[in-house]
Amino acid sequence: MINVIITGTGGMIPLPDRFLASCVIEYNGRKILIDCGEGTQVSLHKGKISISKIDVILLTHCHADHVTGLPGLLLTIGNSGRTEPLDIIGPRGSMNIINSLLVVCGYLPFEVRMSELHDTKPVEFEQIGLNITSIPLKHHMNCVGYSLELKLKPHFNPEKARQLNIPVNFWKTLHGGESVKVMDKTITPDMVLGEERTPIKISYVTDTRPVDWINKIVRNSDLFICEGMYGDDEQKEKTSEKMHMIFSEAAEIARDSNVKELWLTHFSPAMPNPGEYIKFAKVIFPNTHIGIDLMHKEFKPAE
Amino acid sequence: MINVIITGTGGMIPLPDRFLASCVIEYNGRKILIDCGEGTQVSLHKGKISISKIDVILLTHCHADHVTGLPGLLLTIGNSGRTEPLDIIGPRGSMNIINSLLVVCGYLPFEVRMSELHDTKPVEFEQIGLNITSIPLKHHMNCVGYSLELKLKPHFNPEKARQLNIPVNFWKTLHGGESVKVMDKTITPDMVLGEERTPIKISYVTDTRPVDWINKIVRNSDLFICEGMYGDDEQKEKTSEKMHMIFSEAAEIARDSNVKELWLTHFSPAMPNPGEYIKFAKVIFPNTHIGIDLMHKEFKPAE
Repeated sequence: MINVIITGTGGMIPLPDRFLASCVIEYNGRKILIDCGEGTQVSLHKGKISISKIDVILLTHCHADHVTGLPGLLLTIGNSGRTEPLDIIGPRGSMNIINSLLVVCGYLPFEVRMSELHDTKPVEFEQIGLNITSIPLKHHMNCVGYSLELKLKPHFNPEKARQLNIPVNFWKTLHGGESVKVMDKTITPDMVLGEERTPIKISYVTDTRPVDWINKIVRNSDLFICEGMYGDDEQKEKTSEKMHMIFSEAAEIARDSNVKELWLTHFSPAMPNPGEYIKFAKVIFPNTHIGIDLMHKEFKPAE
Repeated sequence: MINVIITGTGGMIPLPDRFLASCVIEYNGRKILIDCGEGTQVSLHKGKISISKIDVILLTHCHADHVTGLPGLLLTIGNSGRTEPLDIIGPRGSMNIINSLLVVCGYLPFEVRMSELHDTKPVEFEQIGLNITSIPLKHHMNCVGYSLELKLKPHFNPEKARQLNIPVNFWKTLHGGESVKVMDKTITPDMVLGEERTPIKISYVTDTRPVDWINKIVRNSDLFICEGMYGDDEQKEKTSEKMHMIFSEAAEIARDSNVKELWLTHFSPAMPNPGEYIKFAKVIFPNTHIGIDLMHKEFKPAE
């Protein structure tokens, strides 16, 4: 029901086989793109990912490697015939920077709606039917991560409905969460619905040092996509100075926040083979995977 | 002596196997880059072209597909350790646009020197030992092409020098263009130099309709790289409205200005196989070639 595609796994510099870190989340025919560095539209093209259904672009921050693909992508979306508004959401300060970048765009045939998130508090909002929570991060500039949840309605229990003699034409309303009256008796949804269902949850975190918010907000994610700028534990100090994380730090967050699966991304161009260092993460969190451009996975409800 | 590499041959949208139109001119270990769209640095990387020796970036104009790679490239050049100044030269209005784009760059460890060219008159200037002439073009915004010439000194004629009894230690001075006195007799360079030599000349023209300046300035080029947005003669009207050229128009300029070789570039993303249409150019100018990313050629003096 939710399709996740990482359209790039690089940090700082786009490389021929590793575009800059970005990610597409598809739900119900609509798309959210997280970050848009130089070349993201090339990767989208490579992956045959239709750009006309990108409704929202979430920005983690406005460093060049996360945003300079925006003017080109918006122009290409414009050329594809889109006329519906497109939302760009990022941390405080994004609007000025993005508007400055978009100087080369001129006229776009759709409305670009920009909004900024709070610096120090998570913000909850809804887009394309997903509940999104921003994750305040710690980088060289305002930066946020995102957790995206698909809340699943409890199943309707026809057995219970029949026992209560509720006519079938009321079932949909009850399943939708509204009460109905049957023979002067009020039937509330909880009387005919099954148990709460676990939402599908995807979390995305670059560029940051480990901070408490991450563990709190990404808790129980089905997929946690997290930066690992360097792999080797010996590079911890250097990575920390650059306000990034090494593989083992990402793995610690994955373990401590009980996520199901970790994909590492945002690799330094100085690390051509991130796979060499996966052991540093797997020893802490076994279900770790090295992100590869256009790696994707579909997430369906548990039952 | 001059190495030309086209680092991209696409117009509008960067594609996985066709980056946006740009070109590198190498001379004497230094480089000029013409245009820098989204992904140009990826193509430079693919072609193993060292970026630290790029001294000059010539911009044809400031449409997104020609400039949005600049912030990323400048940051990567900065990371490569460059501290020498870098010149960016473009048509009037470029500075504001480029400075707006560079908002994401922050500190660069080298000086960026920007200068703007005249709208309606060719400007002559010198960079990395090449004589460059701007070509005012006709597009939807201020736009220029460039002709780059390597002037070649006439050969020194040792026979003549010996006949005139000129000591060998004066030969270098005379070859350098200065007169010397030998036994109270003034010897001028023309007395010991061979004939004028034809310069090596490379010309680059996108995005434009055909205009007189082009023919005048690119005359006798060894290589004329010219846009051909569409190939089919039937698309002439549409191409003209978009202020571009079709293959046959580029070929007409090549023929009328007596260039030696024509490379077509800046192909529409709607034209996946430009080779299908080369006949429309070859019938007018036989030595036409379809540009392919990273196509390159070395140009040496005629003799």
